[in-house]
Amino acid sequence: MSKILIDPSLTHDSTRHVGTHAMSILQGSGYELIVNPQDSEPSREWVLHQIADPQVGAACIMHSQPSDKVDQEFIDACNENLKCVSTFSVGYGVLNDAVADITVMLVLMTLRKVGYGINLVKRGEWPQIPWAPFVLCGHSLGHPGLKIGFLGFGRIPQAAVDRLLAFTNKTEPPTIIYTSSRERENQATIDANFTKRWGVDIKRVEKDILASQADVLIVLCDLNPSTKDIVNKDFLAKMKPTSILVNVARGPVVNSDDLHAALKSGQIFGAGLDVLTGEPNIKPDHPLLHLDNCIVLPHLGSGDFDTRNKMAELCVRNAIQSMKGEPLLAEVKG
Amino acid sequence: MSKILIDPSLTHDSTRHVGTHAMSILQGSGYELIVNPQDSEPSREWVLHQIADPQVGAACIMHSQPSDKVDQEFIDACNENLKCVSTFSVGYGVLNDAVADITVMLVLMTLRKVGYGINLVKRGEWPQIPWAPFVLCGHSLGHPGLKIGFLGFGRIPQAAVDRLLAFTNKTEPPTIIYTSSRERENQATIDANFTKRWGVDIKRVEKDILASQADVLIVLCDLNPSTKDIVNKDFLAKMKPTSILVNVARGPVVNSDDLHAALKSGQIFGAGLDVLTGEPNIKPDHPLLHLDNCIVLPHLGSGDFDTRNKMAELCVRNAIQSMKGEPLLAEVKG
Repeated sequence: MSKILIDPSLTHDSTRHVGTHAMSILQGSGYELIVNPQDSEPSREWVLHQIADPQVGAACIMHSQPSDKVDQEFIDACNENLKCVSTFSVGYGVLNDAVADITVMLVLMTLRKVGYGINLVKRGEWPQIPWAPFVLCGHSLGHPGLKIGFLGFGRIPQAAVDRLLAFTNKTEPPTIIYTSSRERENQATIDANFTKRWGVDIKRVEKDILASQADVLIVLCDLNPSTKDIVNKDFLAKMKPTSILVNVARGPVVNSDDLHAALKSGQIFGAGLDVLTGEPNIKPDHPLLHLDNCIVLPHLGSGDFDTRNKMAELCVRNAIQSMKGEPLLAEVKG
Repeated sequence: MSKILIDPSLTHDSTRHVGTHAMSILQGSGYELIVNPQDSEPSREWVLHQIADPQVGAACIMHSQPSDKVDQEFIDACNENLKCVSTFSVGYGVLNDAVADITVMLVLMTLRKVGYGINLVKRGEWPQIPWAPFVLCGHSLGHPGLKIGFLGFGRIPQAAVDRLLAFTNKTEPPTIIYTSSRERENQATIDANFTKRWGVDIKRVEKDILASQADVLIVLCDLNPSTKDIVNKDFLAKMKPTSILVNVARGPVVNSDDLHAALKSGQIFGAGLDVLTGEPNIKPDHPLLHLDNCIVLPHLGSGDFDTRNKMAELCVRNAIQSMKGEPLLAEVKG
């Protein structure tokens, strides 16, 4: 048991390159590396053949692609010595900052009507916009007494709060409200600690209160049966006409058709989406791409070089640790 | 002398409405208001006729439009009792936050390749992007030891620093470098005070050092003969291929042709522009609108409702103060 299977490429000019940082860790490990030889997804057969090799003790894979999908077939194919399947998507903690950055950026873009601004310039309409006191105006995070709402309040929303408070009003500070799956017994203490940590009022509320009170509503909850479609027609109908919605969680938490209707009718002011139901199969005729008050990004959340290098490091270090029989750095227990 | 001339409209549904906040201040002043009766720019003749009225003691105008341009003809037409011409563009201090918000937003957008991301989704290319470790990756403000450079370091850049530091690395903090028109005698003390204020190293450097060292270069200087075209071919040639340029000052500080060449050849990573030489007369075939690594916004800098309400208030309060013979709140001495 002396081999590690690597699907991301180790060839420097490959589009699938794992990065020089992770590559140097792998190469310094002393283990033999079996590397996907092509600059594209390997065949499923190649993957299953390699993991059956009894010398392969760990595998670094990209499980978002079909060839590397960890399903029953995959598990049945694994040789009995294989101790660890390490996926590149593992990101416990390392991607919080990158996603929090995109969150705040989308909040600013949506409040300040940047989608409309970009479209207007590209359509050649800038010369026809006469200057007037409130032309092209949007809303501000500095608005006195702003209410910022989070659907879900784990680590990423908390990293977003650290950033948002650099933009908010100092004399009339914002209030933060959030929902979580259930009210805890010591909820008052939890919220008092949050309030103390950031120096602004923070409290858990019910979903309807969140919808009706938030000026800025940020979706950062897990996707599960209880959160799928949670932002639907009823939810959007409770929101203020001046409010915005930002989704940096998973597409299906927000109902796309209902959001389109709410944006088109002016029920809410705008939306900024890093994720969208059906992604990446979004065609140019998708209705949300044709609204000036909606911004759609191609899931850039964790996409900065430093973060991806950390994800790559975690992926390969987990594989190496398991080969050595040492504890993993991040683990999903099966 | 009992009348104030108002060019911005006071009609609530007008696109030129001055805002309910400033309107209530004007209406509570007790002075007679002469208001541009149409929902568009008044004729030059109308403006010159009104300011010749000896009862008009102050004028609130929008001097970015030809009808209200304060030139020799305008001054010659003023009646001898006219004490104050208050322009809506007056913003001493009140627009710092709004421009700082847009600055940080453009930095994040440019680092994270948001222009490319938006274009890619609209062109229908999202389905063709296979996931790979560094696909769609950009740079991060959290990069260890990042160098942030400012061309000009007045109030707005300082408000931007307050915000940027919420995104930067805590264990390996950024360095801030800036240029100013001249080195002061007590430069070391000034920089030591900046360093103390923000807890990161800050110092004035020469222009060539700024160009060659900055990872993030933010243009926020005045436009004058010494800064026109200061970001030109020579300047851009010194910048790093991973660096970005953000211009939130005035278009002509950056040479558009040279910037286009630098973006196209990959000499710099990307640019985010809120201003552009020739604005607002930018046609859809402008070369900078056709680069995935360039974002162009239609001068949204001060465009949030709270800021514009403050600008409107300052404009009308100045007019009222002068009618009463009291000191102005913000003044350009003639």
